[in-house]
Amino acid sequence: MYDAAIIGSGPAGLSAALCLKLHEKNFIWFGSMAFSDKVEKSEKIANYPGVGMISGEELNKKMRAHAEEMEIETVDKMVTTVGAMGDYFSLLAENEMYEAKTVLLSTGVVQAKGFVNEENFVGRGVSYCATCDGFLYKGKTIAVFCGSKRYEHEVAYLAELAEKVYLSVGYKDCDIDLPNVERIGVIKEVAGGLKIKSISLFDGTEIPVDGLFCLRNALAPTTLVPGIEIDGAHIVVNRKQETNLPGLYAAGDCTGRPYQIAKAVGEGNVAAHEIIEFLSRKN
Amino acid sequence: MYDAAIIGSGPAGLSAALCLKLHEKNFIWFGSMAFSDKVEKSEKIANYPGVGMISGEELNKKMRAHAEEMEIETVDKMVTTVGAMGDYFSLLAENEMYEAKTVLLSTGVVQAKGFVNEENFVGRGVSYCATCDGFLYKGKTIAVFCGSKRYEHEVAYLAELAEKVYLSVGYKDCDIDLPNVERIGVIKEVAGGLKIKSISLFDGTEIPVDGLFCLRNALAPTTLVPGIEIDGAHIVVNRKQETNLPGLYAAGDCTGRPYQIAKAVGEGNVAAHEIIEFLSRKN
Repeated sequence: MYDAAIIGSGPAGLSAALCLKLHEKNFIWFGSMAFSDKVEKSEKIANYPGVGMISGEELNKKMRAHAEEMEIETVDKMVTTVGAMGDYFSLLAENEMYEAKTVLLSTGVVQAKGFVNEENFVGRGVSYCATCDGFLYKGKTIAVFCGSKRYEHEVAYLAELAEKVYLSVGYKDCDIDLPNVERIGVIKEVAGGLKIKSISLFDGTEIPVDGLFCLRNALAPTTLVPGIEIDGAHIVVNRKQETNLPGLYAAGDCTGRPYQIAKAVGEGNVAAHEIIEFLSRKN
Repeated sequence: MYDAAIIGSGPAGLSAALCLKLHEKNFIWFGSMAFSDKVEKSEKIANYPGVGMISGEELNKKMRAHAEEMEIETVDKMVTTVGAMGDYFSLLAENEMYEAKTVLLSTGVVQAKGFVNEENFVGRGVSYCATCDGFLYKGKTIAVFCGSKRYEHEVAYLAELAEKVYLSVGYKDCDIDLPNVERIGVIKEVAGGLKIKSISLFDGTEIPVDGLFCLRNALAPTTLVPGIEIDGAHIVVNRKQETNLPGLYAAGDCTGRPYQIAKAVGEGNVAAHEIIEFLSRKN
């Protein structure tokens, strides 16, 4: 069992990982070695103290270099469920289970709460992981929401399995061009009974589907961690970055505004110190 | 009147100053262009994300360079009183008065609470500023507590005025060697009636004095801001970095552990954003 699991490889996750590493904790860090999409896309950052005026791309590179210098690596898997098991947590990431005494959510802010009724069909037709659940839809009709270019290979993978894929895209310049993939507009709602039956779009179109894959950078906190207390799109934390669930911490944009790198690294640092404290109380 | 006054030039103060500058606020920043003594003296810093493993001296230099690049400067004066005047604050710094709509305390943590009874004799024999009050003690006998090498020139200044100086030093390698300056041990207590009459040391010695100068990097928060709520050595703040006094914010080590650069820059950033919000509500 890990001492801690960090979910998210933005500045908050890195800040926490650096502290846990220095304190020689046994932790797993879920995220991308590409680090933060959001930092990467920032044109100019002027108020992260000590680096001067810098492009997001350049700062992201420095963050990555810092992780490499300290010999910490991310595990590039999408965590789709965090379960509070009493005195530890179980994490499901692409069909593998992990266990950790504490968890830090540094998942960024998820602007959308998901589609209407989405959360009611999780495991009943709604999936967040192509490689986990794709095989269930061999020869079937599915819808896919692709939230970022980095998931295009997952869409291609699903298109190999499914007979028909309705694709809704959340970014510009989508490169997917496959015979059985049809582009659709913005998904509004999920409908069905025991299982998903259809999705409907904002333009009113209803499309019968056997499944819906939502490929996003992060899940809504309540989808990821059942029972977590939120306020709108944000996870509720105190000054110690504690959530309402003992052993579960949150840091960075997911805890609220200002959405700033300085705030994120500060919260990641505080969360890591609280995790160290929590572990020492337990042992 | 300034929109904001920042007191302290460590990472928290810089982080706030960068944000206020970007938002084109009219602010004054009290501190030293040498920035943070504490950062400067850190041998190795490994967990401030994005700069890699770095010496405190090097990071402090980067902080200073960032301030210079953004064309922000500190005013190198010691603020000795912050008064809450209702809808603004008055600040006294070396005999000059300043006014600001909001104040951010980023003063670092003051380990000692001051000497016993010290706060009862402020303005009645206890002073925090040699250049402000030195002239009052021409030809008299005073005690001086010198907390840092950077105040040695103030001790020398006082020794020119006073007939006799009893000097207690809070650091190693004090270079002061003057005929009318006598080194004493650790000061414990201040005593007197309407005015100070004597100090006593931990070894029990009592020394009659006309005044006591306490030359420290920062004053205890309650000495600096009458009415501020503290918890031990720390200023009580909420997640918005608000203190109990409206318009007064605190960030960095002065708000509590962990005493970390990442936490300090995070809190400074949040405080600045709250100050901007506060100002927009007022206007």
